[in-house]
Amino acid sequence: MSALVLGHMNPDTDSIVAAIAAADLYSKRGFDVTPAAQGAPTPETEFVLKKFGLSAPQVVSDVAGKDLYLVDYSDLAQAPQGMDSATVLGIVDHHKLGDVTTSSPLEAWIWPVGCTGTVLKNMYDFYGVEIPKNIAGGLLCAILSDTVIFKSPTCTEADKKAVEALAKIAGVSDVVALGMEMFKVKSAVDGTSMHDLVFRDYKDFDMNGNKVGIGQLEVVDLSILDKVKAGLQEEIAKVKGEGRHSVFLLLTDIMKEGSEMLIVSDDPAVVEKAFGVKPDGSSVWLPGVMSRKKQVVPNFEKAFK
Amino acid sequence: MSALVLGHMNPDTDSIVAAIAAADLYSKRGFDVTPAAQGAPTPETEFVLKKFGLSAPQVVSDVAGKDLYLVDYSDLAQAPQGMDSATVLGIVDHHKLGDVTTSSPLEAWIWPVGCTGTVLKNMYDFYGVEIPKNIAGGLLCAILSDTVIFKSPTCTEADKKAVEALAKIAGVSDVVALGMEMFKVKSAVDGTSMHDLVFRDYKDFDMNGNKVGIGQLEVVDLSILDKVKAGLQEEIAKVKGEGRHSVFLLLTDIMKEGSEMLIVSDDPAVVEKAFGVKPDGSSVWLPGVMSRKKQVVPNFEKAFK
Repeated sequence: MSALVLGHMNPDTDSIVAAIAAADLYSKRGFDVTPAAQGAPTPETEFVLKKFGLSAPQVVSDVAGKDLYLVDYSDLAQAPQGMDSATVLGIVDHHKLGDVTTSSPLEAWIWPVGCTGTVLKNMYDFYGVEIPKNIAGGLLCAILSDTVIFKSPTCTEADKKAVEALAKIAGVSDVVALGMEMFKVKSAVDGTSMHDLVFRDYKDFDMNGNKVGIGQLEVVDLSILDKVKAGLQEEIAKVKGEGRHSVFLLLTDIMKEGSEMLIVSDDPAVVEKAFGVKPDGSSVWLPGVMSRKKQVVPNFEKAFK
Repeated sequence: MSALVLGHMNPDTDSIVAAIAAADLYSKRGFDVTPAAQGAPTPETEFVLKKFGLSAPQVVSDVAGKDLYLVDYSDLAQAPQGMDSATVLGIVDHHKLGDVTTSSPLEAWIWPVGCTGTVLKNMYDFYGVEIPKNIAGGLLCAILSDTVIFKSPTCTEADKKAVEALAKIAGVSDVVALGMEMFKVKSAVDGTSMHDLVFRDYKDFDMNGNKVGIGQLEVVDLSILDKVKAGLQEEIAKVKGEGRHSVFLLLTDIMKEGSEMLIVSDDPAVVEKAFGVKPDGSSVWLPGVMSRKKQVVPNFEKAFK
C-alpha cells in the first residue's frame, strides 16, 4: 500500500506543493508514496500548478488504516477523518508542534522558517537529490506565498536563500514580479461564494479547550474586499454557530502590511487581551500583523490561557 | 537567559552525550545554550565521559520558565517539573513522537534511527560544523550503546555509517572492542542498590490512560543477574505500588540476543496479548527482544488499546 503524503485541511499553495515535492523526494529515496490533498486547489494554487505544469494531487477525505507523511501541519484538528487508525511515518513542517503522536519512530523535519517549501529544498540538498524544474517553481511560489513576498515576519534568511536557489532551477528571473502576479490572482473575490472565501485559508485550533477558527484572506489592496465584508461577517457568524467559541477572519493588506480582523466570539474581550487594541464593533485594524502563525495564534493562545 | 539542552529522566549515555553535543552545535550556530541532565551519569556513561575527557552536564530538576532544547525524547512523562511554563525551542530525537506540543514554531530533527547521536552527527555535517574529537568519541559510544553494538533491531545503515565516521574523528580503531568494554561496565551490578538498578534505564509511558513503567538492564551474560533477580522483582513491585498499572523490567542478554522480562501488573494477561508468550509466574523469556523502543513499547501500546 502506497503511503499518502498529505497536507492540512483547506489546503493552501504550500500544503499542495509540499505534498507533491515530498512525494517526489520520498519516491526517489525508495519509498512507495503518493501525493494527496484534503481539497481542491485554491485559485492561487491553480495558477501556480498551471504556471509550472504540475498536476493537482488526488483529494482524500478519510485516511483510516493508511500510512501517512504529513506536510505543513502536526495538529489533529487539521487532519482528515480516520487519523486514529492511520500510521504517521513522517512530518515536514514549519509550524508549532501540534498534538499528533505516533506509536513508532518517525522522520520529522520541522524548522522555524517561513514555509515548508524551504525545509523541502534543504531536504533535497541533504539527500543529494536534484530538484525537478517544475517542482522548483512550485516550491518557489509556496515560499513567496507563505512569506508574502518576504514581507511576513515569519520570513527567515533560509527562506530567501531557498528562493534564490529555486528561482535559478526554475528559470524565474524576477521573483517579486511572479509573487505579485500570484497575489493578484489570490486577491480576486468575484464569483467566489462567501463560504469559499472564509475557508480559502482557514484553520481550527484547540485553545485551552475552546475551538477557535482563524481564517485569512490576503489581498494586494483591502478595498477589493469592501463589497464582500458584510457577507463575510455573516458567514463567520454561521461558522461560529457550528460549535466554535470564536471565529476570526484576517483581511490582510500585503501592500499596507497590516490586517483588518473580523470578529465573532463568545468573549470578544479576548481580542483586546491578545492584541492590546479595542475592537471597533465587530472588527479591528491590526497594523503590522501579517502572519497568522507568528503574530495571531501565539497571542490568542496566551489570551485563552 | 541561556537555554538548556536537556535529555530525558533517568539519563542514559545517549541522553547525556546528545545534550553535550547538541549544546556544542547550537553554540557554534550562535545560540546561547547550556547542556543539562535530569540526573547523574550511570556507570556506563561515567566510563564514556572519562574515556573521552568530557564533563557531566549540570543536573536540573525544574525547568519552569526556561527555554529548552529536548534531546532523546518528546514525551511529557519523561520531562522534568515546570514543563508547563517552559518553552521548547527544539527537539533532536529518534523515538516515536510524544505529547510535547509548542506554542511557536520549533526546530525538530527526529529520525527513525538507532540513536540520537546519529541524528546529531548528520546535523553537524548539515551545518558544516566540525565535530570535536572528544564529542565524536561520546557520540560513537552513545550509538554503540543504543544499538547494542549494532545487534539491536533499531540499528540502521545510518547508525553504522555514523559510527564509521565518528571512529575516525575520535581515533578509535576497534569499535566492537570499545563497545564490549563499555557493556562490561554496564553489566556490573555489585554495590548498586536495587532501586538504582531498576531506574538505571527506566521510562514511564501513558498507555491508553494507564501509567506503565518499563526498565531495562543490558548485560553481557544473564547469569550476572542471578543473585539480584529476587531483589529486582521486589523493587518493581514497590515501584508499581506508587500508582502504576504495570512495571516491566527487561533483563537483556546482549550475547544471547534476547530478554527475560520481570512482570508486575494489574493485568498480567497483557503480556501474552503483547508478545504471544505465556509468562511463567512473574517472568517470561522473549527471544530476540532487545529493543524497548522498537519491540516492547509498540507491542504493549497495541495490547493496551
